[in-house]
This record gives sequence, structure tokens and C-alpha cells, in this order.
Amino acid sequence: MSPLDLIVRNGTVVTASGTTRCDVGVLGGRVVALGEALGSAAEVIDASGLLVLPGGVDTHCHVEEPQADGTVHEESFVSASRSAFSGGTTTIICFTPQFRGEGILEQHRRNRERAACGMIDHGFHQIITDPTPLVMEEELPQVIADGVGSLKAFLTYDPLHLTDAQFLEVLVAARRHGLMVHVHCENHDAVAWRQAAFLAEGHTRPRYHALSRPVVVEREATGRAIALAELVKQPIQVFHVSCAEVAEEIVRAQARGLHVWGETCPQYVTLTAADMDRPGFEGAKFMCSPPPRDAVDHEGVWAMIRRGVLDVASSDHCGFSYDGDRGKAKNGRDASFDQVPNGIPGLAARLPILFSEGVSKGRITLEQFVALVSTNPARIAGLAGRKGCIAVGADADLVLWDANKRVTMTNVLMNHAIDYTPYEGMAVTGWPICTIARGVVVMRDGVVTAQPGSGRWLERRHVNPGPML
Amino acid sequence: MSPLDLIVRNGTVVTASGTTRCDVGVLGGRVVALGEALGSAAEVIDASGLLVLPGGVDTHCHVEEPQADGTVHEESFVSASRSAFSGGTTTIICFTPQFRGEGILEQHRRNRERAACGMIDHGFHQIITDPTPLVMEEELPQVIADGVGSLKAFLTYDPLHLTDAQFLEVLVAARRHGLMVHVHCENHDAVAWRQAAFLAEGHTRPRYHALSRPVVVEREATGRAIALAELVKQPIQVFHVSCAEVAEEIVRAQARGLHVWGETCPQYVTLTAADMDRPGFEGAKFMCSPPPRDAVDHEGVWAMIRRGVLDVASSDHCGFSYDGDRGKAKNGRDASFDQVPNGIPGLAARLPILFSEGVSKGRITLEQFVALVSTNPARIAGLAGRKGCIAVGADADLVLWDANKRVTMTNVLMNHAIDYTPYEGMAVTGWPICTIARGVVVMRDGVVTAQPGSGRWLERRHVNPGPML
Amino acid sequence: MSPLDLIVRNGTVVTASGTTRCDVGVLGGRVVALGEALGSAAEVIDASGLLVLPGGVDTHCHVEEPQADGTVHEESFVSASRSAFSGGTTTIICFTPQFRGEGILEQHRRNRERAACGMIDHGFHQIITDPTPLVMEEELPQVIADGVGSLKAFLTYDPLHLTDAQFLEVLVAARRHGLMVHVHCENHDAVAWRQAAFLAEGHTRPRYHALSRPVVVEREATGRAIALAELVKQPIQVFHVSCAEVAEEIVRAQARGLHVWGETCPQYVTLTAADMDRPGFEGAKFMCSPPPRDAVDHEGVWAMIRRGVLDVASSDHCGFSYDGDRGKAKNGRDASFDQVPNGIPGLAARLPILFSEGVSKGRITLEQFVALVSTNPARIAGLAGRKGCIAVGADADLVLWDANKRVTMTNVLMNHAIDYTPYEGMAVTGWPICTIARGVVVMRDGVVTAQPGSGRWLERRHVNPGPML
Amino acid sequence: MSPLDLIVRNGTVVTASGTTRCDVGVLGGRVVALGEALGSAAEVIDASGLLVLPGGVDTHCHVEEPQADGTVHEESFVSASRSAFSGGTTTIICFTPQFRGEGILEQHRRNRERAACGMIDHGFHQIITDPTPLVMEEELPQVIADGVGSLKAFLTYDPLHLTDAQFLEVLVAARRHGLMVHVHCENHDAVAWRQAAFLAEGHTRPRYHALSRPVVVEREATGRAIALAELVKQPIQVFHVSCAEVAEEIVRAQARGLHVWGETCPQYVTLTAADMDRPGFEGAKFMCSPPPRDAVDHEGVWAMIRRGVLDVASSDHCGFSYDGDRGKAKNGRDASFDQVPNGIPGLAARLPILFSEGVSKGRITLEQFVALVSTNPARIAGLAGRKGCIAVGADADLVLWDANKRVTMTNVLMNHAIDYTPYEGMAVTGWPICTIARGVVVMRDGVVTAQPGSGRWLERRHVNPGPML
Repeated sequence: MSPLDLIVRNGTVVTASGTTRCDVGVLGGRVVALGEALGSAAEVIDASGLLVLPGGVDTHCHVEEPQADGTVHEESFVSASRSAFSGGTTTIICFTPQFRGEGILEQHRRNRERAACGMIDHGFHQIITDPTPLVMEEELPQVIADGVGSLKAFLTYDPLHLTDAQFLEVLVAARRHGLMVHVHCENHDAVAWRQAAFLAEGHTRPRYHALSRPVVVEREATGRAIALAELVKQPIQVFHVSCAEVAEEIVRAQARGLHVWGETCPQYVTLTAADMDRPGFEGAKFMCSPPPRDAVDHEGVWAMIRRGVLDVASSDHCGFSYDGDRGKAKNGRDASFDQVPNGIPGLAARLPILFSEGVSKGRITLEQFVALVSTNPARIAGLAGRKGCIAVGADADLVLWDANKRVTMTNVLMNHAIDYTPYEGMAVTGWPICTIARGVVVMRDGVVTAQPGSGRWLERRHVNPGPML
Repeated sequence: MSPLDLIVRNGTVVTASGTTRCDVGVLGGRVVALGEALGSAAEVIDASGLLVLPGGVDTHCHVEEPQADGTVHEESFVSASRSAFSGGTTTIICFTPQFRGEGILEQHRRNRERAACGMIDHGFHQIITDPTPLVMEEELPQVIADGVGSLKAFLTYDPLHLTDAQFLEVLVAARRHGLMVHVHCENHDAVAWRQAAFLAEGHTRPRYHALSRPVVVEREATGRAIALAELVKQPIQVFHVSCAEVAEEIVRAQARGLHVWGETCPQYVTLTAADMDRPGFEGAKFMCSPPPRDAVDHEGVWAMIRRGVLDVASSDHCGFSYDGDRGKAKNGRDASFDQVPNGIPGLAARLPILFSEGVSKGRITLEQFVALVSTNPARIAGLAGRKGCIAVGADADLVLWDANKRVTMTNVLMNHAIDYTPYEGMAVTGWPICTIARGVVVMRDGVVTAQPGSGRWLERRHVNPGPML
Repeated sequence: MSPLDLIVRNGTVVTASGTTRCDVGVLGGRVVALGEALGSAAEVIDASGLLVLPGGVDTHCHVEEPQADGTVHEESFVSASRSAFSGGTTTIICFTPQFRGEGILEQHRRNRERAACGMIDHGFHQIITDPTPLVMEEELPQVIADGVGSLKAFLTYDPLHLTDAQFLEVLVAARRHGLMVHVHCENHDAVAWRQAAFLAEGHTRPRYHALSRPVVVEREATGRAIALAELVKQPIQVFHVSCAEVAEEIVRAQARGLHVWGETCPQYVTLTAADMDRPGFEGAKFMCSPPPRDAVDHEGVWAMIRRGVLDVASSDHCGFSYDGDRGKAKNGRDASFDQVPNGIPGLAARLPILFSEGVSKGRITLEQFVALVSTNPARIAGLAGRKGCIAVGADADLVLWDANKRVTMTNVLMNHAIDYTPYEGMAVTGWPICTIARGVVVMRDGVVTAQPGSGRWLERRHVNPGPML
Repeated sequence: MSPLDLIVRNGTVVTASGTTRCDVGVLGGRVVALGEALGSAAEVIDASGLLVLPGGVDTHCHVEEPQADGTVHEESFVSASRSAFSGGTTTIICFTPQFRGEGILEQHRRNRERAACGMIDHGFHQIITDPTPLVMEEELPQVIADGVGSLKAFLTYDPLHLTDAQFLEVLVAARRHGLMVHVHCENHDAVAWRQAAFLAEGHTRPRYHALSRPVVVEREATGRAIALAELVKQPIQVFHVSCAEVAEEIVRAQARGLHVWGETCPQYVTLTAADMDRPGFEGAKFMCSPPPRDAVDHEGVWAMIRRGVLDVASSDHCGFSYDGDRGKAKNGRDASFDQVPNGIPGLAARLPILFSEGVSKGRITLEQFVALVSTNPARIAGLAGRKGCIAVGADADLVLWDANKRVTMTNVLMNHAIDYTPYEGMAVTGWPICTIARGVVVMRDGVVTAQPGSGRWLERRHVNPGPML
């Protein structure tokens, strides 16, 4: 063996299948040895008393994403990298938009350029909003050839949502090319009907955001997405499942033998619809879709995590600042709820929240935590063996985690470009002390030292495991 | 009490809640007395050894219905009345179409005229395919004022199917006016995708009709219809449920406390998809939607009937002759499966099939049979106490039924305008000997004697029982 | 037709399958005519503005029942008849005990004698606690020959409970003789373990009665009774289901096609475990098994009633006076919870409670009410066509019911031998004004006028409908 | 790092959470390093082209177990070790019996002695058949102190089965001491009833073994065991689940949040009840309890494995030779089915069958296979981190596996003391080439070279993870 570049010594190494005390040896950015007392290295980090976890894998992040109105998300790949590293995440999968009537190649190229400025390893889900023959037959194969392994379909939002016929085209294309399909499941027409009804009655405040998107519209769209996937025999992952009632649709699918998985997010075990009821415009800070439900639903989500029905927890990071004219108030603080940009930031908060609410409170084991935030998302993204694990041959993406550190979360700690966090003031137990990306220390004690441009493009192929049925 | 017009003597009277031996006394077309030995009457019919059942109520019949191509269904109200009486049915609910871009008033008026020529009591479901403000705000209230108590929505078929947004409008209108909503549940886009795929591969024969409409497309649309009804808090009845897997969606709805009911039809306990595989064009005789499933599904449907989940069995009578240019072969005998008119005749066969397969084979009780084909459909149609029962005050619609008579069904016995029956050659035990409509004998031993024009329009109001949830 | 003895005129007659306005004609104790304007009769009762219901059928009453300690229930057949008539009930099925080591013939004979002194028509369930060959082979056939159509098995209580082996013997005997089997489902060993644990910790107050019999012990025993019945292919009725979680076991059984039915009682939609927490010995007034659950469970029971899973509501009348040395305090007011006699009185309160909570509050229809308290229990008891209906040929057991009368229930109104009612002070809407048993007015405005000794023994045969599976 | 004892080089290392190509370094019997190119060692094994798996962990083996009739199982710890190593298993958990009326200390002592003669690492489940105060209060703590971490309860078999009261005592003791409880779930009384009925009718052949133990008796007992465990809040593992219908009880338990796990065995995905129908006495070779079900049930078991409901596959090895007077024919070849010893051998066949049917046929992934046969059983047995994994610090128990080797299984290959295998002639793809136990090669190409007496006692503590509820 060549001399090692780095040894992380004496930590408690946690993987999805077990916990052991050992050293981790790194060479050329990859883990090349795990051992009881590895020899010497150019750099040695003492992890005594700390957990050594695989870096978080966040497969659902909106970063520097162009919007239909010509603006771009405030969070840049540079600021997102900083925030991710601060929170112990070392891999992100973001989105390339398609605008109706337009192609996807140019958007993909620009997205690659923007992402290349950041410091974090990354991949893209290709959003399809307009599956024209040109896009599906000519452009999509080129994007796939460049390493895009997954498609994203919206069943809600104007002008993103697909008809069932269009969604079937996306599923068929995915099956042909071996891609994974991720779906935002809310019934567009039902939401639009509720919104129009509330607005007609003069109900415009943020709380009506939640009321216009009740559980039944999410459950219906989830059941429909699964049924169409069953018809086409194409695996899918249901994004951001908000409660057990929706997850029950996934239980039924899995009981039928389908390859259907469910993702949830930190907001669904911490926030509630009542947060949108805060005075003034404050409720806008908690607006995302599907909306957080009730406190009683939090335990339901945990139960579905424990049963393995919801096996991935992403952030759905989608930041809009509270102040300023690019964010939540871009249409004014008196804008009706449907005119307020949707989404909340969570890149840095994801691991601390899930560790604290999950492991520290005894709801899940350490191994289940690692599987939830790192190993499972990496596997579903086609990155198994490379990301999301601490194993010989894998990228040396590591987080040194102090399981006992108590922190009160503030926006400063989030280290992102957004001017607020919905988790302001939340107390957590467990915090990332040091983040290592491909063998390089990129964060220590909250200070990010990574070099812009150091993030790598992750080619993702053969993501689709094939139909189980 | 005035002298009676008619006494049906010594029969075994069956209602949904019990069986008793007694006479039935009729005056002015209504039952006015039930008794052990009613006195005398102008006419006395001896029903010794026979069952006396309430006349069948068939709430799902396509009769003399104008089609989008300008033709009209072959079955006229006169021929349908004859067929209905031959099979023991005395009430039918048919359909008034709406053609996209057109109103409904004129169609309703003409439908009333056509139906007035027949001999059977009747009502209409108003089909909505194009819920424009004019139709919904101005015309619909007039139609309702005339006694239409229910709407019909299609989630499949071009050009009948509604988008979710349009279906929501139908549900909302129904809630406002206290109407029932009946839904044909198959996912239009999914069926269209399968059809196009088969046709592209050159698969054109009748069997591909079934393959292009698999269970999953029916189950999906059923789940969606229920979810949207739940959102609006509007009761619905799911039409022609073909198998237990679909009925399970109704089980779940009822377990949530929703007012959702399920209808099934004789074809789903007798025919199979394999029937469409018969040589030549023969398979066309069995084409209807949803298609009959497999033999194993028949018991599943019976189980759901016994559980009360499927509480109505209608015929979905929709006849197209096998020969001639108005029927199945209107586009030629080599027409691809999607060009063959959909539907099968069943008005006269309904009661004998359900009695024979149900009661004679021990799957359901006499009382359950009466509930299934008469009392429950009358109740859901808003006709409780008037139709579907043998009770003082109710219309004297009676069937004298020989429970032991063995008959081999032939098209002649169906007494309809269609040149075939899909049940040709099927042996049944139990047969209607005499049918009485509003106190008048209209069929005896297969000979129909009713006077054209004697059928009455049934005003139906307050059909919607309100949301249970 | 002979001249009538009695006409109930102008009432609104309700049966399980419909409601109609008509006269009811009675001759020789039976209904012989239903008609719009029946002629004349020796006696005419004007029921204008009132409902005319079939008399209540209470298939679960403990009356004048010998106890293991040599005492006999305080409620005699005379006092029970009075209470039943006061509450609109005209048929009861009681119990003949078997004491371990003893036969059943003599108990049956004495029970017949005692019951013959009362005024109400009656039958017995034969309790089996010791299925010796002598009892099962020699005595049981004689009891059956005398018209006992059903067996009762306890899975809890010392010394009543059966082992699984003994319960299998009961099921097999029932199948051989065509009997119905009714089961008290609570796991004896589990209850005994909980009781011992509480007593060991010094917890003796009434509230521990409920805590020692949690839902899981009822659910387990219900699942087990159903499984053993499935093995033997013998229909059963699960007695006094206390909540939806237990009823779910019946849902599953019915979905498998089994002949399994569920009974519930008024206490499970009105009382709660918290009632046993009342100060002093007061909680003893509410002690019965299974114990009432929580307020939230009431709606669950209603939902299961609406779904038809719980299709009978009996009283499980089992009275022990609060004062005196034969009742609740027979072992002193400081007796530990396991030393307090189990059971509460409810014969007279049953119909008013279920009508008021069910019909008046819009949870069920009039027809569902009649089915629940009269038609269904009669059918399951093998009395269809004779009791539980208003039909030509049936016994003329009628209740004239004022649907709008508001009454505050008191013990005096219960007209029973017990010195309290657990429903003291409960307001109800709907009350029986007049009760008619076999054509004779036995109660009017709360005054019972029946003659002791007028109650008849009901021979019950062919009760078992056979296995559905 | 000290010089290594052994390096397994160039293999494809599989764990429950991933697969990687690396060397495995062993020192002092433990894995001390995993690396890309570990240096040198006293012994180097080239694993190129092979999988390197953690040694199998079989937590359900009957070995050299004293029987109630004074005999001892034919399979000794020496022969069992040989068979286990031949099949790639390196850890077994066996059973210490308790005979009614006797204590457990002496049996435990003797079991330790017998097991110490073998070559395989081992632990014991303590069977409780007679939970007297002496045993539970005085002896059990001593056995626990010696490292027994789990109890076994039988709900069937004379004289092993416990009453519910006794089972509750076992559960309570387990909770107090932090033990796991494993349960054999079949309803004893129900089986006895069916057996007696068949024998009374003269049905004595092996096929009646299966008919006397239908699914419903297993499902019932499973539901009951879970309910009692829920009452006590004690985790349990349900042994040898034979089909999906039974596993559904575990699904329901997990959905309620209970710590309930399910084990299955190779026989339930390969054998069927029809095997017991073979001519002559041949059927006895396949008699075990619960009996194998139908072929259609095999896919049901796989589906439950994939869903994680059945997360352990043990052998339930329990060998009785076909010939000779200690085995299947000990009561003669004409013995009735209830006189034939129950159980089949499977120690060596377990891994090849599950790999071939599971991985080679595409039903599960490599990682799922490792979890199923090694990692999960080790975890549930309290051996996580020590057995069932390839991780730094863990015992160096390894199997070199040729994923492509096609083998026809014969009894010789089983290398056990029994004279037959029920899997004779079955073709498998995938076979263990070399087994390493604590760093020592103990089997190579079917030749076992381990030294008798080299197996170690595994102290198991803190096995119970506590209640989840």
C-alpha cells in the first residue's frame, strides 16, 4: 500500500449495517483502508469520542435553478456547497429545469457550468415539463450520455405539471433508458380548485397555502403516480411524503411487489401547518409543498421510517429569503398565498434535525440514521459503493460527528445565502464537527475551507434497478 | 278500503328484509294492502308456488341514446320496455347525453319525448361532458327542476371524459343541488396509451380491447374519483366495478366514513376476457368497458356483494347488433378493437343471471337478491318507498318468479332489438313468469302486452343523502 | 278475512328495508294485514304522528340467572318483562348456566319454569362451561329438542372460561346440531395476570377493572375465537364488541368469507372507562366486561355499525343493585375491583339510547336502527319472519314510538328491579309510548299491564346458516 | 499494526450495506484491516473471482438435544460443526431443554459441556416449559449470568407447550432481564383436535401431518403470541413463519409499532405439503412443523423477505435419520403421523438454497442475502459487531463463495450425521468454497479441518432492544 494521505484515527465508524471502532485510511481521495491501527499518513485527524459517518447525500436540492420568471434561485452552488459542508452533507443532486416549448440541452450545459463553480460533488435530475419528440428522442439521450440518471416529474404547479399522458411518456422513456423517476405528487386540478375557492372568498393569508393542499390531494396523486408506474413497470421514488396516510399508498405498492420508494424531509417531522398561521407575513417562512401537517403526523412519519417505507430523508432545500425582492416577498408582503414562492431552506439543518429527533430521542438507531440520510439516497441515485458509505474504494466523504453536542440552531449556523431558517431556535443534540470531502477537510468547527470549483460532476448510470413485479 | 283492482294471492312475498306468505292487494296502480286472505278484487292472480318480488330496478341502461356520430342506439324505449318486462324489470334509469360545445336542455327534451313512447317507468342520469357556465348555471337547474336527480361523469372515452378540474365542477354542482353522481372509472390517458401501443404493434383484434384496459387503470380512476369526491364531500356511486381489487378502493372509502357505493353487473360474474378471444369477429359480442376479467374474479365480486360493498347490480345494457351497419360491425368486421362500439345488452338477462348464480347456487339469500337488483338501486336513485319494494303505498311493480324453472337462455328470450345476447346458451335456474307494472300485467310467459306510451317519467329529487364524513 | 282484533292506524311503519304510512291489522296475536285503510276491529289505536316499529329483540340478557355462589340475579323474569316492555323490547334471549361438574338438563328445566312466570317471549342460550361427554352427547340433544338453538362460550371469567380444546368441542357440537355459537371474547389468562399484578401493587379501586382488561386482551380472544371457528367451519357471533380495533378482526374474517358477526351494546357508545373513576364506590355502577373504552371509541363503534360489521346491538343486561347485599356491594364497598359483580342493567335503556344517539343525531337511518335492535338479532337468533319485523304472518309485536319526545332518563323510567341505571340523567330524543306484544297492549305511557305468565317459550331451530367459506 | 496472520486477497467483500473489492486482514482471529492492497501476512488466500461473505449465523439449530424420551438428537456438536462449515455457517444458536418438573441449571451445564466438544462458536436459547418459581427466580438468573440471552417458548407440542399464563410469565421474565423471546407459534389444542380427528378416521400417513396443522392454527398462535407480547411490552421473534398469511400478522404488529420480527427457513421456499405425499414412508423425510405449504406460498415468503417483514432465514435444523431406530422410524415405518419425530436437517443446505433461489434467481440482492442469513440473525441474537459482518473488530468468520458454481445437492455434501437430506437432487447455483472461522480455515472444497473443541461459547447480553411502542 502507498503511504496514506490521511488517517482519521480512533473514531467510531458507523455504516448502515454496523458500528465499529477503527481508523480510516485515505489515499487519492478514496478510502483505501479501514483498520485497528493504521500506520502513518501525511495528515492524521484524531476522532476520539466522535462518530465517523459517511458524508450526507442530499438527493433533493434546488440550487441556482432558473425560474420561469427569468430569475435564478438565490442559493448558488458556492453558497450551497458551504451550507452543505456546514451540515455534514458532501453530495447533492439538483435539478435542471425544462421550460415549456424549450429544449433541455442548453439548460443542462448551463447547469453543469454553474455547478462546476461550487465545491460539492453533484448530479442532476432532469425535469421534464414538455415531453416533445425532439426533447425525448434527441436531447434526452445526450443528457443521459453525460451522466444524468434520473427524471423529475411534477403532478402539480403551473406551468410544471404533466398530464397523465405526458407522465406516461416520461415513465416509458425512463424504462427504455434505465433511469429513475422522481415524482412530486399533488393533484394539480384539485389544488387549483381549492386555491380559487379560497381566493374567491378573500382568503389570501399564508395559512390558506396549507388548507388548499390537504392530505387527500397528495394521497390521490401518490396513488395515481404509483398506478401509472405499475402499468409501465417503471420504478419510481415519491418525493417529500408528508404523512403516514400518504405513505400507506407506498406500503400497498410494496405489498404488491412494486419498486416504489418514498422520500420524506426534516420539515415533516418538525414543522406544522400552524406555523403558517404566525402573525403578519411570518408564515411565509414555512410555506412549502406539500405543506407540513399536524404535530400528530410527526410520529406517523417516524413509524414509516422505521418500517423502511420512507427510506430516504432529503432536504428539498429551496431557499427564498424573507427580505429583499428576490425572495418570499417578491410580490409584496400582502401577496396572496398563491403568489408567494414555495420552498424552504434545509441543506445544513437536515442531518442535525434527523440525528437529534431520530437518534438522540431514541426513535431510530445510528445505523438507521446513516441509511436514511446517506446510504439509501446514494443507492437510489445510482451512487452505491461510491457515495453514502465508509468502505474501501468509496470516496472519502466523512463527517466527524459529536453525538452529545447541544446546539441551538440559528440562521448563521446554516451558512447559506438565505436570510432565515425555519428552524431558528430549535435545540438539537448532535452536531457535525468536521467534514471531509474526497479526503480533504472542507469544514471544521463551522468554518468552510473548500476551494470553489472543487466539486465534481457525478456521472450516474444504470440507476433503474428494473421492475420487481 | 275501496274494492281492489287486483289481488296477487298465495305467493311468497320477498323484500330486502324478509320473506312472508301473503296476498298483495292493488288499487290505482299502488299496493294498498298486504294480508293473509285479502277479500275480492276485479282481478285475482294465483301465485301459489311462486315468489312475488318487487320489479327489478335497472339504474344503468343505455336506450335510444344519441351518439356523437349522429346515430342513435338501436334499442328503442319500446323495445327496451319489452325486454325489461320479459326479464322482470319494471324501472329503468337511462342517460341524456351532452355533446361538447352543446347544451343539455334540448337533449333532455328529446329524451323525454322518446322515453314517453315506451311502456316502462323511467328516469335519466344527465351526462356532463362539457361543464360550461351556461350549462351548469342556467340549463342544469331546469333539468333538475324537471326531475333529474343525478349526473353521470366519464373518466375515459373520447370525447366524453372529463379532466379532474371538470369532474370537480360536476361534483360541486351535485353538492349544491343535492344530486347523486355516478362515475365511469377508467384512466383515459392510460387506456389511450395502451391502445396506441397495441395498434402500433399491429394488434387489432378484440382481445386487445381487454388488454388495453387492465385492472390497474380501473383501480386508479376509482381511487381518484373517490379522492376528489372526498375533497368536495359529495357522495358518488362507482359504476360497473369489475373485480374485487377495484372494490377494495370502495372498502377503504367506506372505512374512512365516506358515502361511496359500488355497482357491478352480470357480465362480471359470468363472462371473462377470454370470451373476446373467440374466433373471427365473435369476440366483439363481449366487448364492454371495463372488460370482464378472469373466472377467478367472479367469486371476488360475489364476496364483495355479500359484504355489501357492491350493493347494486345493474345491466349497463348497451346493445349493438352483431350484424348490420349500425352495430358492432359498423366500421367493418376487420376494424381494429378501438373502432368497435363498446357495450353489451343485458336488460332481460340481469335478474335471471343474478338469481341463478346468486340464489340458486347458494351464494346469496333471496333477500340479498332483492336488495341487489331492486331495493338498493331504487334507494340510491331516490326512489325509495316508491320503487324497489313491496310495501303499502309503493307502486305495484311485481314479478312472479318461478324459483325452480330451468331455462337455457337464447336471444329470442331476451326480447330486445339486438340480434344476439352474450349469454346465449347459458343455463339458469329461476325465471320470471309474470311481470306487473303499476298493477297491470305487462308480461306473462314471455309475452309482453304493455301499451306503448304507458311508461311514466319518474321525478327524482333529494337523491343525495349528504356527506357522511 | 276474519274481523280483526286490533288495528294500529295511521302510523309510519318502519322495517329494516323501508318506511311507509299504513295501518297494521292484527288477528290472533299475529299481523294479518297491512293496508292503507283497513276496515274495523275490536280495538283501534291511533298512531298518527308516531312511528310503528317492530318490538325490540334483545338477544343478550341475564335474567334470574343462578350464580356459582348460589345466588340468583335480582332481575326476575317478571321484573325483566316489565322493564323490557317499558323500553320497547318484546323478545329476549337469556342464558341457562352450566356449573362445572354438573349437567344442564335440570338447569334448563328450572330456567323454563322461571321464565314461564314472566310476561315476555323468550328463548335461551345454553352456556357450556364443562363439555363432558354426558353433557354433550346425552343432555345437549334433549335441550336442543326443546328448542334451544344456540350455545354460549366464555373465553374469560373463573370458573366459566373454556380452554381452546373445550371451545373446539363446543364449536364441533354446534356444527353437528346446526346451532349458533355466541362468544365472550377476552383472554382469561391475560386478564388474570393483569388483575394479579394490580392487586399485588395494592390497586383495588373500580378503575382497575378497566385497566386490567385492555383492548388487546379482547382483540386477541376475538381473533382466536374466529380462527377456531374458521378451523371448524362453524358460524359465530362475537358478543359485546367494545371498539373498532376489535371489530377490525371481524372485518378481516368477513373479508375471508367467514360467517362471523359482531354484536355491540349501548354502553360502548355512551359510557367510558373514566366513569369507573368516579369517587367512592360509584365507579362500580359502570363495571362490565369488556369495559367501556374512551369517548373517541364511540364514533368508531358507530362507523362499524354503519359498515354492517356490528349488525346487532343488545343490552347485555346484567343488573346488580348498588345498595343491598345481593348486588355490587355484596363483598363490601371496599372490595377490590375483582370482587365486585360484573354487569350493568340496560334492558329498558337500549332502544332509547340507540335511537337518540343513532337516528336523532343523524348517525344511522330509521331503517338501520330497526335492523340493529330488532330485525338482525331476530334473524341471528333463528326467529326471522316471526320476530323483529312488521310483516304479514309475524307476531304482532309493535312499539309506538314518539321520535320527537325528549326524555331525561332516570332509574324509575327503567322499571327494573335494580336500584340504579348507569344512564341516570342522560337526555334522549325519541321514546316508546306504547308496546304491543302479540297483539296485546302491554305498556302505555310507561305503565305495564301485561299478565304474569303470558310470556311464551320460543323454539329456535336451524339457527346456524352453515359455513360460507 | 502488528504483522497479520491472514490476508484474504482480491475478493469481492459483501456486507449487508454494500459490496466492495478489497483485502481482508486478520490478526488474532479478528478482522483488523480492510484495504485495497494490504501488505503481507503469514497466510494469504487468493479470493479472486469469489465473493467474501460473513460466515453464516444460524440462530435456530437443534443439536445433540436431549429429548423427553431419554434419547439425544443424532446430530452431535462435532457433526453439526462439520455440516455448518461445509455450508458456510460459522455460528449457531442451539437449545437447552427444560423437562417439566425439572430445573434448567443441570441441563445448561451439560449442554455447555457437549457444545464445548464441537468446533463451531455457539450460544443457547433456554427453552422454558415449566416456569416454576424455583426455575424463574433462582435458576434462570444463573443461566443468564453465564451468557444466555434468550428464551424459547412453544405454543404447541406435548409436553413442551405453554399455557397463555405460562407464556406471560416467560415474557415478563424476559422483560425484567433484558432477554429476547423466540416463539414456536401453532395452537396446540387445535392441532391436537385435528390429529385426533384424523386418527379416529384411520388417517395415519405422513400427509396428515400437514393436514393436521393448517395455516389457520399457525396464524392464530402468531396473532396470540404477538398480542401477549404487546400486553407485556416485550419484543419477540416469531420462529419459522411458513407463508405470507402468517407473516401478515407481523406486518400488522410492526404497523402498530411493535418490536416483532419474523424468521423463515429454506423449507418454506422449496418444499411443499405434497412432498409428504410421497409413496411409502418417504413423506416422513419432509415432516416438520409448521409444515411446508404450497408452491404458490414460496413467492409469498420471498415477498415478505423483500419487504423486511421476514428478516432472518434460519435452518431449524433438526435431524432424524430415515433409517435406524433413533430417527424417523423409531416407532416403525407404519407409525401414525403423530408418532414420527418432527424436523428436517438443513444446516449445510441453508446458504446454498437461499443464495440460489434468492440471489441467483434475482429475487433478492447480494446485500439482502447477507443480511438475511448472517447480519440480521447476529443482531437479533445480540451479536452485532461480533458476528454476521465483515468489519474491523469483528470475528474473522468468512466464507469464500463461488457465485457461479452449479451444484446438485446430495446428502454427502451436507456432511451431517443424518442419512438423508430433503433437498437431495436439488440444483443450486452458488456454493461455499472455503470457510474461515475466527481466522482459521476450517473448510476448503468440502473438506472440514477444524479441531474438535475449538468452538467457543458466545456470551449474549442486552439482547432485548426494549419495547418500541
